[in-house]
Amino acid sequence: MNESYDRDNIFAKILRGELPCIKVYEDDLTLAFMDVMPQSDGHTLVIPKNPSVNMLDIAPADAAALIKTVHVVAPAVKQAMQAEGIQIVQLNGPTAGQTVFHTHFHIIPRNEGLEMRFHAKEMEDPAVLERHAGKIRAALG
Amino acid sequence: MNESYDRDNIFAKILRGELPCIKVYEDDLTLAFMDVMPQSDGHTLVIPKNPSVNMLDIAPADAAALIKTVHVVAPAVKQAMQAEGIQIVQLNGPTAGQTVFHTHFHIIPRNEGLEMRFHAKEMEDPAVLERHAGKIRAALG
Repeated sequence: MNESYDRDNIFAKILRGELPCIKVYEDDLTLAFMDVMPQSDGHTLVIPKNPSVNMLDIAPADAAALIKTVHVVAPAVKQAMQAEGIQIVQLNGPTAGQTVFHTHFHIIPRNEGLEMRFHAKEMEDPAVLERHAGKIRAALG
Repeated sequence: MNESYDRDNIFAKILRGELPCIKVYEDDLTLAFMDVMPQSDGHTLVIPKNPSVNMLDIAPADAAALIKTVHVVAPAVKQAMQAEGIQIVQLNGPTAGQTVFHTHFHIIPRNEGLEMRFHAKEMEDPAVLERHAGKIRAALG
């Protein structure tokens, strides 16, 4: 683990159960949940349970576990949200747009004519997030 | 393999040696090379050697191989280009911005005050790409 990892980042708190999240998937090494400030409806995050700041310090096994979960969750998000496309984005460092310093992949549904919202600007209604999460969980089967 | 995979996409041609690329890394399952229309200096692509359209039809083993290579190449790109941050982007479907229909991860260096160029608009001088590739190969050791 990188020495600069902050154990009090919000994803660390979610992993410890100190903050809530709207979960759609979980396994031994990863957790997937709704982004509370979605760039589009259905915007989902996938994080490793082990601490790392980003892809520059993550352990290979955690990176492998992450992509395995992204690979499972992305098609479910696409199907659940009836999205035409999916952007998968992983940001490393503040200059690259990283705002939470625990490794995460964004799964962002895209549809023609729907502009993405600015990230981390507007908190979504939890009831809306819960409805989207329900669809994604159903698609995961 | 997805039936919609086009064996004549440009990455398939690169993999068959029918088109050139400026390679920075290769292993049994993946290839990394310079994007010829970079969004920033050092913009590198990582592709699987096996055919797939994107993350929605890729085999889990190919996805795992891809992220393993991204995990190796991204820090080298950061170091080589002296980048403050790295964006890792993987686009699925035309609506999400995918323009070549063979799975690929973008590794995009970011620096404060340097706006990203529009992708697929401007062809970079091959000599410039070769210089950047040389730095990335050196960083890969």
